[in-house]
Amino acid sequence: MRLKTMWMAVAMAMAPTAQADEGMWMPSQLPDIARQLRAAGFQGNPADLADLTKPPLSAVVKVGGATGAFVSREGLVLTNHHVAFGVIQYNSNPKRDLIQNGYVAADRSQELPANPDFRLRVTTGFDKVTDKVLAEAKGKTGRAYYDAVDAASKSLVAECEREAGYRCSVVNMFYGRDFYLVKQLELRDVRLVYAPPRAIGNYGDEVDNFVWPRHSGDFTVLRAYVGPDGKPADYSKDNKPYTPPAHLQIASQGVSEGDFVMLAGYPGITYRHRTATEFADQVQWRLLKSVEVMKQLQGVIEEAGKTDKQASIRYASQLQSLKNGIKRFSGELDGLKRSDAVSIRRKDETAMLAWLDKQPSAKTLNPEIAAAAKVIAEGNATRERDLLFALMQSQTQLMRSAISLQRLAYERVKPDAQRETSFQQRDEDLIAGMLRQVQRRYDPTVEKRLLTALLARYQQLPDAQRLPEFDAAFGHTPAELAAALDRVYGATKLGDEAQRLSWLKAAPADVTKSDDALLKLAAQLQPALLRIDEQRKSREGDLLRLRPAYMQALIAYREQQGRAVYPDANSTLRVSYGKVTPLKARDAVNYTPLTSTEGIVEKNTGEEPFDAPMPLLDAIAKGDYKGYLDAKSGVMPVNFLSNLDTTGGNSGSPVLNAKGELVGLNFDSNWEAVSASWMFDPRYKRAIHVDMRYMRWLMDKVYPAPHLLKELGVPAK
Amino acid sequence: MRLKTMWMAVAMAMAPTAQADEGMWMPSQLPDIARQLRAAGFQGNPADLADLTKPPLSAVVKVGGATGAFVSREGLVLTNHHVAFGVIQYNSNPKRDLIQNGYVAADRSQELPANPDFRLRVTTGFDKVTDKVLAEAKGKTGRAYYDAVDAASKSLVAECEREAGYRCSVVNMFYGRDFYLVKQLELRDVRLVYAPPRAIGNYGDEVDNFVWPRHSGDFTVLRAYVGPDGKPADYSKDNKPYTPPAHLQIASQGVSEGDFVMLAGYPGITYRHRTATEFADQVQWRLLKSVEVMKQLQGVIEEAGKTDKQASIRYASQLQSLKNGIKRFSGELDGLKRSDAVSIRRKDETAMLAWLDKQPSAKTLNPEIAAAAKVIAEGNATRERDLLFALMQSQTQLMRSAISLQRLAYERVKPDAQRETSFQQRDEDLIAGMLRQVQRRYDPTVEKRLLTALLARYQQLPDAQRLPEFDAAFGHTPAELAAALDRVYGATKLGDEAQRLSWLKAAPADVTKSDDALLKLAAQLQPALLRIDEQRKSREGDLLRLRPAYMQALIAYREQQGRAVYPDANSTLRVSYGKVTPLKARDAVNYTPLTSTEGIVEKNTGEEPFDAPMPLLDAIAKGDYKGYLDAKSGVMPVNFLSNLDTTGGNSGSPVLNAKGELVGLNFDSNWEAVSASWMFDPRYKRAIHVDMRYMRWLMDKVYPAPHLLKELGVPAK
Repeated sequence: MRLKTMWMAVAMAMAPTAQADEGMWMPSQLPDIARQLRAAGFQGNPADLADLTKPPLSAVVKVGGATGAFVSREGLVLTNHHVAFGVIQYNSNPKRDLIQNGYVAADRSQELPANPDFRLRVTTGFDKVTDKVLAEAKGKTGRAYYDAVDAASKSLVAECEREAGYRCSVVNMFYGRDFYLVKQLELRDVRLVYAPPRAIGNYGDEVDNFVWPRHSGDFTVLRAYVGPDGKPADYSKDNKPYTPPAHLQIASQGVSEGDFVMLAGYPGITYRHRTATEFADQVQWRLLKSVEVMKQLQGVIEEAGKTDKQASIRYASQLQSLKNGIKRFSGELDGLKRSDAVSIRRKDETAMLAWLDKQPSAKTLNPEIAAAAKVIAEGNATRERDLLFALMQSQTQLMRSAISLQRLAYERVKPDAQRETSFQQRDEDLIAGMLRQVQRRYDPTVEKRLLTALLARYQQLPDAQRLPEFDAAFGHTPAELAAALDRVYGATKLGDEAQRLSWLKAAPADVTKSDDALLKLAAQLQPALLRIDEQRKSREGDLLRLRPAYMQALIAYREQQGRAVYPDANSTLRVSYGKVTPLKARDAVNYTPLTSTEGIVEKNTGEEPFDAPMPLLDAIAKGDYKGYLDAKSGVMPVNFLSNLDTTGGNSGSPVLNAKGELVGLNFDSNWEAVSASWMFDPRYKRAIHVDMRYMRWLMDKVYPAPHLLKELGVPAK
Repeated sequence: MRLKTMWMAVAMAMAPTAQADEGMWMPSQLPDIARQLRAAGFQGNPADLADLTKPPLSAVVKVGGATGAFVSREGLVLTNHHVAFGVIQYNSNPKRDLIQNGYVAADRSQELPANPDFRLRVTTGFDKVTDKVLAEAKGKTGRAYYDAVDAASKSLVAECEREAGYRCSVVNMFYGRDFYLVKQLELRDVRLVYAPPRAIGNYGDEVDNFVWPRHSGDFTVLRAYVGPDGKPADYSKDNKPYTPPAHLQIASQGVSEGDFVMLAGYPGITYRHRTATEFADQVQWRLLKSVEVMKQLQGVIEEAGKTDKQASIRYASQLQSLKNGIKRFSGELDGLKRSDAVSIRRKDETAMLAWLDKQPSAKTLNPEIAAAAKVIAEGNATRERDLLFALMQSQTQLMRSAISLQRLAYERVKPDAQRETSFQQRDEDLIAGMLRQVQRRYDPTVEKRLLTALLARYQQLPDAQRLPEFDAAFGHTPAELAAALDRVYGATKLGDEAQRLSWLKAAPADVTKSDDALLKLAAQLQPALLRIDEQRKSREGDLLRLRPAYMQALIAYREQQGRAVYPDANSTLRVSYGKVTPLKARDAVNYTPLTSTEGIVEKNTGEEPFDAPMPLLDAIAKGDYKGYLDAKSGVMPVNFLSNLDTTGGNSGSPVLNAKGELVGLNFDSNWEAVSASWMFDPRYKRAIHVDMRYMRWLMDKVYPAPHLLKELGVPAK
């Protein structure tokens, strides 16, 4: 406890007072913060950025779960090498290894079609539909509120998608306060134009992941095509390049330390405006407990692997993913502690509520804020059980298969539209794939040990968290649990692939009545799992109804502080601004914000992932950098660091200078920023970008593509 | 090859032109470099530093293999916590754990006696004796030259040590050009006065070893005592504090980035003036091959440990030491490559030889330089065999015991003075200890596998490197080797401790004629090992005779370049100067040269070795730093970084400011400097020091010792 106090004192002493450069702004908010934007160095008119469906923001596109941008009038798109990796892989084979060697399309005819499921989405509509979405929900609570929102949203989407070639969705801002209908043109013919070799595009790979300083050419150039009629079409030789509504111009100069930069992209999810109680739960329980349980599962797999080589191979990928999860959660925990997130959020919320008490709106808002807190507390009451059950389904193979088969049987008897998400007709291929995959990833002894670890923890939970169906199935003692698992896994035939797949084809009633031991067990557990699901949706419905009061209070509180509030990230287009910024990572350790080609040579070992290709090493030795050097530092830039506000989904986001010209391509964050999904700490939060000068130099001097440089408006030197 | 070229190009481009701040100067050289010293910022008179037996350099003392300094008129000595660790350990027991808790002697009566073999040495004489040492050697070569130097040195030492309380030695400078008789007063009663807890004195331990940024309070205060007659004496209550010939004054202010600093101490060994061929041998063969073979031995031990828990425990320490060696050698190799040491040294030597060719001295020097090169080449001809034999003796337990017992029997029949170093009467206790230790560190299967790895390599050597005695003992094929090892290890009784120790007491002739299988084998190998020894000494004698020509050429060449040459380090007192210097460790990674108490908190995990004591953490949280903050950066300093030229042995060296006042205590180097024993690269070579402000703050605010601060002349604030 004393240590904690000391930590806090230090954190407080170091904590910044201003919320400098924090924010993932909706474009429509930019005119409201015009003064700050200009003060930070932006030279354009913020009002020009207010509509994300109009130029220049309409040049920013969604690429899968990430971002990209149009960079030529004829449909060239720039995104990350890791975002377009599937396209490169799809076009690679042992005889033509584009992953290893990279690719330069000599002309349009050489541009290679992407995998058929690859999509680019251009946002063409972004309309407020709050009234429509909430029309039927008003007055309802819990599950009914949830269902009313869900039904209204589905209906809006269905209507919107009637126009061919479009994909629509309803998103909510400020946790249910505002709803928007997003309409996106979906481009289906996308082609590979230029990719660097893996050892450039992914130089450093896992070793350098989340690391600064970084030296990766993580970019790829694609081109979007449409049918002869100008409409989205599947790949065809007759298709022609798509004319985007706008495209970005690559800057002729680069940026240096301290220069203004801004970024547009599709950040996935953040939790910045969660309540202080949720912050405390995340730091003091959720991350700690998750790491604790995941480490136990890691131990189980490693122990089993010591004596069983085959098990060790089968669980290698699961083990790796557990390790990654543990590393990430631990990093998030360290970061939130370092930033003293819990106490800072608590202080802020306490001050906000004290302020609110003096406002007239307190009368309506306070009861809803209190009610929301109660719902959150209800969810937390069973958090340990819910964590264990989630792991029981994600970390097992056969158990998960059985539970999925039973749930599918339960859903299949409903009309497709009413079936639970992930258990609709269109999901059945995915389920079949999962059932097949089991074969390479399952070992009965290991699965029993993993379940033993999780369910032994479950058995020790207080009565209020336990469920009769589970107690009946697994007993109350370790001995009963062991006996139950031995019996079920000794008898089930689900270990056989044909058996598993046959149940996928069986009539729902037959699955429900199956006498396979594991399917029978899953049937026995199902009512409990359905009940948990029901409770969760009811809580979600209530929170969708109640959280807006908290957000309204926060927005009003910030307003009188002279600050605007951005909504938490939700995969919609956002803009952030800031500057090229060094990082004081630790005591006496300073990172400068530009890396140079010299660093590639320093890191190079000749072995993957530090095996820069010879043409690159030769070009560095030659040092023909004329026109590409950073004026301020005199080095040939590779990557640069900014304090831009980003999160997962911002991969491939274009980074612009003060004039709105393209200077970089976002591709990663630093390790110290792992906790930024909860709290933006300006001391540590950085984003990592490919410098466009490096891309241009590679396309000019190393793997030349003069025709593309010309099309990009930055001809070879 | 192309990669190498590229590396070189980059290294060349980055390589500095000046040899700024390099040098471990003999004090007598300082007046010669007075201009540089003053230009660097030294404010005193360099002539005052020319005599290491006079103040202020007579305040610098040798502490074991390291350094310390007198810091009060009444014999207080400051050195590193790790240098005085044995003293702290000697005074610790489970009830009074000074390692864990630290120690503050409340008054003189509480000062605790050091372990009886602990010694402080004050240099009182340093006289050139070249003529005496070489008088009988002149005209001789090889072994005879070696013996003549050896005999003359031993006689000078014997004469010098006739005065009670003194320890003498003959050292040579410039590889045999100059010889000095060093006379040192040996203080035997040394007491522990002040030590911080382990978690301050060794904060970070192995994790932070060789690491910057560093946060260690690696200091301890001792006091030297003498008998009532003022002469060195064993510990006694009647002893009184020793009055040193000089003591250093702690500075009232600290130093900041860019400030002048100098350091005096006893650096152990460097190879800076070795020939270009020796540089190439070190980088291109010796380090590479050593790492290769050591990794193989590591693999053997790890493999055996997988299935044999007991073997894994017995070889844990040997494994750790192999790993440390591999890490260190690899670091040295990386560093020498990074600095492009081989080609830089080759270019320098080529230029020197070209210059020499035009000088009159070429006629006498050239033949000797050529002859030295021949001797070095001869030694290299058997380098692989010699490496394998060295490992055969250092990495085995029973084999080493048998070889030592046979060698001891061979030496014991001679008069003690003529016995080989390490096999004299006074060494027999050490040998007994080694024979006893075997019990905890030996496993026959592992030892056979280690020998198999080494001797299989030996069997593949060309004929010229092999020896008839070894071939006869181990055969020419792996099968013969396996049979020989099985036979010998199956039959020997040396695995039994009592047996081993009984052979230590046996008559030499009985050992020689022993029919124990392993002793017999060792007897069989002995003539070969003696021959190798003989050849080595002959080469050493010739190099002692011939290298001075190379040094003379180098000194003359440097002189016309306007540069002085310091002799390679040899555990004699040296002075280096430089400044407080940041480190650009890698591309985009900059280290500032001062760490702060904030960094202690950042690193603290609460678990060893990052478990700072509560009183320290509380004091940091309180932040009562008045009078101790660094003026320039505003932080409370802990350690600082300089470009001072140091190597092993410089631990505990006092670091002085421009006025000669004490500002720091040297205790480590950065990892990038591991290769500095061969080449000083000003880009990377740094030394790490405890900041005296941190020591004073700890003694003032955290573990108070106001009486000591007063004695040190820097009273508590």
